Amino acid sequence: MTIRNAIHRIEELFPGSISTKTVNRKQHGTNETYFPEILPDAVFYAKNTKEISKIVKICHEEECPLVAWGTGTSLEGNALAKRGGISLDMMSMDKVLRINAEDMDVIVQPGVTREQLNNDLKELGLFFPVDPGANASLGGMAATRASGTTAVRYGTMRENVLGLEVVLADGRVVKTGGRSRKSAAGYDLTKLIVGSEGTLAIITELTLKLQGRPEAIAAAICAFPTVDEAVQTVIQTIQMAIPMARMELVDTETILACNEYFGEAMPPLPHLFLEFHGSDSSVREQSEIVSDIAASLGGSDFKWSSKSEKRNKLWKARHHAFYAVKAKYPGYKAIATDACVPISKLACLIDETAKDIRESGIPGPIWGHVGDGNFHATLLIREKSQKDRKIAQGIIDRMCQRCLQMEGTITGEHGIGMGKLKYMQQEHGDSWELMSEIKRAMDPNYILNPGKVIKSN
Amino acid sequence: MTIRNAIHRIEELFPGSISTKTVNRKQHGTNETYFPEILPDAVFYAKNTKEISKIVKICHEEECPLVAWGTGTSLEGNALAKRGGISLDMMSMDKVLRINAEDMDVIVQPGVTREQLNNDLKELGLFFPVDPGANASLGGMAATRASGTTAVRYGTMRENVLGLEVVLADGRVVKTGGRSRKSAAGYDLTKLIVGSEGTLAIITELTLKLQGRPEAIAAAICAFPTVDEAVQTVIQTIQMAIPMARMELVDTETILACNEYFGEAMPPLPHLFLEFHGSDSSVREQSEIVSDIAASLGGSDFKWSSKSEKRNKLWKARHHAFYAVKAKYPGYKAIATDACVPISKLACLIDETAKDIRESGIPGPIWGHVGDGNFHATLLIREKSQKDRKIAQGIIDRMCQRCLQMEGTITGEHGIGMGKLKYMQQEHGDSWELMSEIKRAMDPNYILNPGKVIKSN
Repeated sequence: MTIRNAIHRIEELFPGSISTKTVNRKQHGTNETYFPEILPDAVFYAKNTKEISKIVKICHEEECPLVAWGTGTSLEGNALAKRGGISLDMMSMDKVLRINAEDMDVIVQPGVTREQLNNDLKELGLFFPVDPGANASLGGMAATRASGTTAVRYGTMRENVLGLEVVLADGRVVKTGGRSRKSAAGYDLTKLIVGSEGTLAIITELTLKLQGRPEAIAAAICAFPTVDEAVQTVIQTIQMAIPMARMELVDTETILACNEYFGEAMPPLPHLFLEFHGSDSSVREQSEIVSDIAASLGGSDFKWSSKSEKRNKLWKARHHAFYAVKAKYPGYKAIATDACVPISKLACLIDETAKDIRESGIPGPIWGHVGDGNFHATLLIREKSQKDRKIAQGIIDRMCQRCLQMEGTITGEHGIGMGKLKYMQQEHGDSWELMSEIKRAMDPNYILNPGKVIKSN
Repeated sequence: MTIRNAIHRIEELFPGSISTKTVNRKQHGTNETYFPEILPDAVFYAKNTKEISKIVKICHEEECPLVAWGTGTSLEGNALAKRGGISLDMMSMDKVLRINAEDMDVIVQPGVTREQLNNDLKELGLFFPVDPGANASLGGMAATRASGTTAVRYGTMRENVLGLEVVLADGRVVKTGGRSRKSAAGYDLTKLIVGSEGTLAIITELTLKLQGRPEAIAAAICAFPTVDEAVQTVIQTIQMAIPMARMELVDTETILACNEYFGEAMPPLPHLFLEFHGSDSSVREQSEIVSDIAASLGGSDFKWSSKSEKRNKLWKARHHAFYAVKAKYPGYKAIATDACVPISKLACLIDETAKDIRESGIPGPIWGHVGDGNFHATLLIREKSQKDRKIAQGIIDRMCQRCLQMEGTITGEHGIGMGKLKYMQQEHGDSWELMSEIKRAMDPNYILNPGKVIKSN
């Protein structure tokens, strides 16, 4: 019962599909943030469910760790092979299997990326709304319960995955959920697996909810004296049942970085970036109402546009904030961390975290999905500085503590991965143990992405 | 290890809180539809979580079945004590614990009913949208994953429960989820327990998402030549991203019953009942667009109103359809059954089911939440006729078969209870076994609502 046995048996069964070459292992051992390189022992390039079922069975028998791999864009080391074993590359399973335009759903393989899917949907007047920024694979997005800028209107992966085909830890292939918009037929296994970060099952097919393209889209930006007024604007807007499509906060530091990067001259203040979806007139009306709310809270005049090109220009600073910030600090590594609280606590949490970052001496611009109470701090550390890394870790520790005191959650969308495991006990108490019990029932040999999400055994 | 021991131990621990009187047992052994009376051995009137934790622990040790009881309005015998044991009456736990108006969430005890909650919220300009018709308890609604007329816009209990406090089968009290709008921190235990019909845990507290009251509400009704045109109207409306608040189909037979009951003269045709939420102008605009779509599909002129009293009058036939139908058939029992399919299949499923009902000779009007692909058939059988009961069962069997062939689910909102257990294997295949495995991990002694949802052991 060893990793070596597993690789050997898989090589015999599927010659040429598994690689132990360093170059392939390295491709599946890196990450976009601050975790060290962790190489899997081998990479298996999956082509279909049947194959996956067979290799999962072998891994189960050999107690060999197995971690699914998509675009590698997760931010907490979620797909790194922490205990070695096999990285299961899903990116060749990239077919959009069936678009049901009338029912506004689609069945895809897990390696399809969200941009690829939206390209396929364009002509049908439909779109898949979840947008975490990166052009991630839909399997990976489901596994981490991704969300992003549009979640305030359309929900996260939790709300947008209707059904799954998965391979369980013993190789059984099961379907969960289905194509109906709702169901009261038994346990919601789909929602259990979405967000389980590959620790309960391997996702091999997804049924997703689609949305009709709105007749009109308008964008607006608005500056505020402080973060607090910006957040109050968001609270009042949501309470008035304005169906906002996106509501993003960008702090002063990020605005300054964007001004430099794009040669813009936005006022050096916190900004809200807004997007409205609806009919021409409803979009105009929504924008007027929000503009009035913002004005009453000291917001600047709205910059507003409903034209596609101008909209993109307006939102440029938000969409490319990460690159603008990275450009300002060449040679730095970016640690993207996130937290989520009830929205009434958000201004306070951001203020305290920003103060903490300022005092720490490392740069850490903040932006985020303020409509959901979710924000990101992007901590910039010098590539090889252990000191910077320690300072950043301290900031994250204190941010998580603050956020839990405010009845929030340690991550709104990045997941647990390797970065947030140590706060799980505090957030969940005894229900973290319940997660372990479910894991044990579903994966008794701990082969699926071991060392993640649940208490290490 | 017996039921008797458990009752004895509980009586000693909480004298006067447990009753074995027939009158109390009868109150907790009846149901609103067609299941025979099934009396629990005793009724425990719960007052707080601590008490429940203790009695669950006793039941766990004594292997005594325990079934939570709310308003008793479930439709598939979901809360009947199929294997005897103790009915856990939750209705004294009826406090709205904390309204967080800014965050638009609320923490309630499970015995709070949805009308009670909405009364408390009225002055704050907020409301809880899930509306299954009955004034059910919120704990019961979560347990059955209830939904109803507004799910098309606001989601079901699945989307509206943010967090829970539950007592596990061994007496541990755990909290799942929380107050954040979203989280990526570990397994979604909340969604696992919502819809588990009391088989995985006892819900003792709920955190619910609230909505801001829309500025304007308008209602409309419209007649169509056939069900197909009505459903096509709904499909086109949803594809155009019109944010409908309610979209209900009422068939000709129900319209006839309502005409009799209310002395109305609605045309004897299938009708759509619609509700729009938004600003004054957006509500008017939405209504105009849908009216145009309906007209292009042969729909009659819209009857439309934005005045509260007139709206209620317009919707009377939908809201009171059940009573109108019951009045038409005095001495009959109503079997309310439901199914849900991808919306493109709905017209076909309704047509075939209606034909089947007509041919069977028993009355069975149809209405439902057409925006979700969910519909109800209300089969009327003579109280003591075994023949009628058999005919009705045959109709339900065939409806479920049809619905599964159409990639639907055997229940959109009534749950499995005792009525739909026999179709679970066919709907879920091997994932039904996975449900059993999770049940076993969480309730190894099968004390929580045994005989429901999962394969009987």
